Amino acid sequence: MADSQRLSGIFTPNVVPLDAQGEINEAETRRYVDWLIERGVHGLYPNGSTGEFPRFTAEERRRIIEIIADQTAGRVPILAGAAEANTRETIKACEHYHELGVRAVAIVSPFYYKLSPAGVYAYFKEIADNSPVDVTLYNIPMFASPIDVPTVQRLAEECPRVVAIKDSSGDLPHMMRMIAKVRPLRPNFSFLTGWDAALMPMLLLGCDGGTNATSGVVPEITRKLYDLTLAHDLDKACKLQYRLLTLFDAMLLSSEFPEGFRSALRLRGIQTGVGRQPQSPTQQVQLHELSNQLQCLLAEEGFTQEPIGGCPVGESLKGGGVDSAAVDRIVDSVVGELRRRGMS
Amino acid sequence: MADSQRLSGIFTPNVVPLDAQGEINEAETRRYVDWLIERGVHGLYPNGSTGEFPRFTAEERRRIIEIIADQTAGRVPILAGAAEANTRETIKACEHYHELGVRAVAIVSPFYYKLSPAGVYAYFKEIADNSPVDVTLYNIPMFASPIDVPTVQRLAEECPRVVAIKDSSGDLPHMMRMIAKVRPLRPNFSFLTGWDAALMPMLLLGCDGGTNATSGVVPEITRKLYDLTLAHDLDKACKLQYRLLTLFDAMLLSSEFPEGFRSALRLRGIQTGVGRQPQSPTQQVQLHELSNQLQCLLAEEGFTQEPIGGCPVGESLKGGGVDSAAVDRIVDSVVGELRRRGMS
Amino acid sequence: MADSQRLSGIFTPNVVPLDAQGEINEAETRRYVDWLIERGVHGLYPNGSTGEFPRFTAEERRRIIEIIADQTAGRVPILAGAAEANTRETIKACEHYHELGVRAVAIVSPFYYKLSPAGVYAYFKEIADNSPVDVTLYNIPMFASPIDVPTVQRLAEECPRVVAIKDSSGDLPHMMRMIAKVRPLRPNFSFLTGWDAALMPMLLLGCDGGTNATSGVVPEITRKLYDLTLAHDLDKACKLQYRLLTLFDAMLLSSEFPEGFRSALRLRGIQTGVGRQPQSPTQQVQLHELSNQLQCLLAEEGFTQEPIGGCPVGESLKGGGVDSAAVDRIVDSVVGELRRRGMS
Amino acid sequence: MADSQRLSGIFTPNVVPLDAQGEINEAETRRYVDWLIERGVHGLYPNGSTGEFPRFTAEERRRIIEIIADQTAGRVPILAGAAEANTRETIKACEHYHELGVRAVAIVSPFYYKLSPAGVYAYFKEIADNSPVDVTLYNIPMFASPIDVPTVQRLAEECPRVVAIKDSSGDLPHMMRMIAKVRPLRPNFSFLTGWDAALMPMLLLGCDGGTNATSGVVPEITRKLYDLTLAHDLDKACKLQYRLLTLFDAMLLSSEFPEGFRSALRLRGIQTGVGRQPQSPTQQVQLHELSNQLQCLLAEEGFTQEPIGGCPVGESLKGGGVDSAAVDRIVDSVVGELRRRGMS
Repeated sequence: MADSQRLSGIFTPNVVPLDAQGEINEAETRRYVDWLIERGVHGLYPNGSTGEFPRFTAEERRRIIEIIADQTAGRVPILAGAAEANTRETIKACEHYHELGVRAVAIVSPFYYKLSPAGVYAYFKEIADNSPVDVTLYNIPMFASPIDVPTVQRLAEECPRVVAIKDSSGDLPHMMRMIAKVRPLRPNFSFLTGWDAALMPMLLLGCDGGTNATSGVVPEITRKLYDLTLAHDLDKACKLQYRLLTLFDAMLLSSEFPEGFRSALRLRGIQTGVGRQPQSPTQQVQLHELSNQLQCLLAEEGFTQEPIGGCPVGESLKGGGVDSAAVDRIVDSVVGELRRRGMS
Repeated sequence: MADSQRLSGIFTPNVVPLDAQGEINEAETRRYVDWLIERGVHGLYPNGSTGEFPRFTAEERRRIIEIIADQTAGRVPILAGAAEANTRETIKACEHYHELGVRAVAIVSPFYYKLSPAGVYAYFKEIADNSPVDVTLYNIPMFASPIDVPTVQRLAEECPRVVAIKDSSGDLPHMMRMIAKVRPLRPNFSFLTGWDAALMPMLLLGCDGGTNATSGVVPEITRKLYDLTLAHDLDKACKLQYRLLTLFDAMLLSSEFPEGFRSALRLRGIQTGVGRQPQSPTQQVQLHELSNQLQCLLAEEGFTQEPIGGCPVGESLKGGGVDSAAVDRIVDSVVGELRRRGMS
Repeated sequence: MADSQRLSGIFTPNVVPLDAQGEINEAETRRYVDWLIERGVHGLYPNGSTGEFPRFTAEERRRIIEIIADQTAGRVPILAGAAEANTRETIKACEHYHELGVRAVAIVSPFYYKLSPAGVYAYFKEIADNSPVDVTLYNIPMFASPIDVPTVQRLAEECPRVVAIKDSSGDLPHMMRMIAKVRPLRPNFSFLTGWDAALMPMLLLGCDGGTNATSGVVPEITRKLYDLTLAHDLDKACKLQYRLLTLFDAMLLSSEFPEGFRSALRLRGIQTGVGRQPQSPTQQVQLHELSNQLQCLLAEEGFTQEPIGGCPVGESLKGGGVDSAAVDRIVDSVVGELRRRGMS
Repeated sequence: MADSQRLSGIFTPNVVPLDAQGEINEAETRRYVDWLIERGVHGLYPNGSTGEFPRFTAEERRRIIEIIADQTAGRVPILAGAAEANTRETIKACEHYHELGVRAVAIVSPFYYKLSPAGVYAYFKEIADNSPVDVTLYNIPMFASPIDVPTVQRLAEECPRVVAIKDSSGDLPHMMRMIAKVRPLRPNFSFLTGWDAALMPMLLLGCDGGTNATSGVVPEITRKLYDLTLAHDLDKACKLQYRLLTLFDAMLLSSEFPEGFRSALRLRGIQTGVGRQPQSPTQQVQLHELSNQLQCLLAEEGFTQEPIGGCPVGESLKGGGVDSAAVDRIVDSVVGELRRRGMS
């Protein structure tokens, strides 16, 4: 490996700002990169799920990495999402991103078709054997073929290029099982969690960091939670984890992913533009309501002003925040659904 | 609509033959098109799941339609898979395929992200409002966001361009619920089943046809089953449906989809080449064994010779065929898995 | 076997009428037995899921069979639900019901714990080896450990006492796979479907009958559908299957099972009493509304008067009946949920 | 409430020792109670899932509580599983257990039928309004209708008798959402986790204790993990949590639950007898192999001798223990299955 150090810290899976024509807004993307780095994120992770890689063309995905690598200019490491239509195209992307100087690529497990563990293994093996840059496995069973523990172990054993896994299952014992199997064999192999709701306990039980969508919106909080946890300042970390959970749930569960993150980011002054997935009229109304709720949450954290109508008294992050019983029920059923799909 | 007649009959979701370099084998693709039309399929359905559309680049997907439209030359209608990265790209594909003279496009519901019914509606509404060619909805909940009955009904009511649904859920009462809702409003709306295992009962209960992967391998059988069913020759149809189920299960369940179909097609003399999804060494051995089993099944139907070692005595399509108890168990667990994912 | 004839026809999984104190209403239960037999059901199936066997004590379950066996007095065969806390208690129940003259018992697969196929096999093997009466396997993967095809085949081979399976998965190809495996070995083995929504196609593809909850409410329709299908009067059967689906969905999907069946049965003049599962105030309001909708559906079939406020014009069984788009959405999501749980 | 103090600490869901005839072994049960209390568990939890309450008759369930209450004689609090066939029978059990002096009852959510949140609410409301003893909700979505966050919140608000929830979902953010909602309203409401694999992080994020099956086999370890975690001795706690995970997985995932716990307990000298769920010949062989593996794990912890053939060198709890890649795969697929069913 070019780099013997474990990947660690908070990598931001950044949203891609779009302009009025729905095209990549390069200027705002560059401004957003600076904004994130100034607020302390340890790295960037373009072309992740939050970055909506499947909604861009292959050319656009390349351009996104090019812009971000150029703007970052080595200030922080980049983990570049590189999954393309097939292994040959993916390897070509690895080669290109390697030339751009990214620290590693991240490859999501095959999706649409649901592959068996043998198929998932064969897919990553071929890529790892041909990539000139370090590879991070990306496990997100909610959306893609799951990467099971024996497959991670086998790839870690056979492929020096595979240096990390990003796991968005949110399943703590699953993460522990991977760590127990792989760390003795590959001490520098890195484990990153993509599930903000469990960041603190994941770190306490051995994770090296996270690729957390909240860090794209409230990098100050996600980064602080990381620091407090590593310092074993448990009481403060615990309280902050609860506040992050409230924000995470509000952004994740009340709209089509990642529209909630896009809305919240707008409240922080980044011109994200309108997403590429069309929204029905009903959804647009719901997004507007969500935006008001998010504004109250962000105002409580001191990141923005309250909305014009003000926020409900006593609706605080500590006491439960924006949720009525009805919203709770929705949140709960969505969480149930996520769990059924293998996430959480 | 240009054409007031319902889509009906058997549309073949064709495999794409590849050459030794893994590129589209144009000559063999053209030969395969002729082979299928000569054997009686009513239409072609390129860029479907069997055609592995997600494993080709956007340029390749266009070329596949161009080759097939050119070779078909109007002999049978074409249903062209047109899903691209986002609605804008998809609409561009619709425009291009319209110019090529396809009968309709088929658009799979958004995948990777799992959208709510409101999101699925908004997606298809935007496409249908902008497509110059008739649109078939493609529901395959195993792989993509499900299209529920109220969404189908709403799209049928609001969008004259939406003329059909291809449903691969395999759920008969679900199909009946759609027919009950939509047929009174849109008598020419067509219902096609993608689940070969239930083709006969689907047709008996009102479906207009199917997009059936078996018709790409044994078009003689799938077509005959269609004809027998429409003629209400129930005893013969029932027996043939059981034989088709055996073939379908063998091709579907013993390997990564659609490798089993690719293997079987090779036995019929079409040079399919090696698929783009890498296979582990274990998987390659299994595929070889499967190929022998498929050869016995096809030999029994008179489509090929028995393999050199011969076939097990009494292993016939009627009596259960190639399966040992162990294989049965695998088949069963896979079916269970499919069901959990919303198929079957 | 005492009886070499296949179990066949429509067996009614009867609701148990309760009195004002929530106790078994023996008189009404006897009256209901006569009512059903007079309307042509081929057999009775007490202590099924519709009969809410888990909500009665062991003593009550015995008493239910005693009352029904006594009242039936041999007019139709009885399939007696006999699952108890463990195999020893279940075998005792088999012995008792055998003395009462039931045709066979039906044993649901173990529930609460989800057993592996090996565990399901061991459970039924022990019961079958010790039961003095024929045993019907009861597969209802929505509620209990699934019984997979190899397990059915193995039990059919090893246990002469096992003479049938009642399958409520609603999965047509699954039923066909079982028939393909078992019928060559045991020609008298019987296949009964518990999924009213697919009764006609199940019968056409080889099932011997059904244990259908609708037959407890509209025995005239379920029985007629059975007769029309066996006579291959396909057009009439198809129309009736659609009407039965509408009734089935309305009773199944708009309330906690089996409250919808209980409500509909009340409309037919059977005093079912209030069920044992408490209903929240909201649920009680919903049940009242459902009852009005059911009354319209039953009035259309000529089984009852319209409710006092009348029924919506044009709301007919043919055109879609009682459902608004909102109800449709609920129905659809419930169906999706059922499918996820392995049913349908 | 009789007791204003929160339920806290480790409650052991005890296995029920059976004699050679399969009957409750009272003498060994009493000895086991003493053994557990001597090893430091904070309370007992008879008639839980580990105690196989559904495999005993109603009379046996009562007798189990009677024996354990008598033998405990007030040394530790008892949480008595009290779920019966319906609310009336359950309330009778609550009354009886109250007279026996149990600290609280634990009621599993309705199972077999899968109830909606409204149905789950109505069920617990009726019980809580009529129970003379404190009630613990028992959420185990793998086996029973899930209890969602809004339902927990509503019951906590309306029912002073409901004082705790035992949650076996293993979902950490889910537990946090419940705590965030309920603790501000009911500071003495207790949260207990039934998922040993995440005990340490659950405690760190606000849980009051656990009802952990491992504490019935290795009470020394589970108790020590609890103490280390509360003392914020994070490094030692983390290592012990990993060792507990290895033991938990070995007992949970390699056999039908709870046979692995039964086997391990035998190795510790408790005569558990043979379980009531029959085991196929294959399963018996597998249980024998598992027992050898468990013996090695327990020997490493100093709780027993190595088996006669010795243990594999280097097979230690730290390095991954008993698992070959094949076992790993099984473990992984079982975990995946559990996750699909809503656990983990």
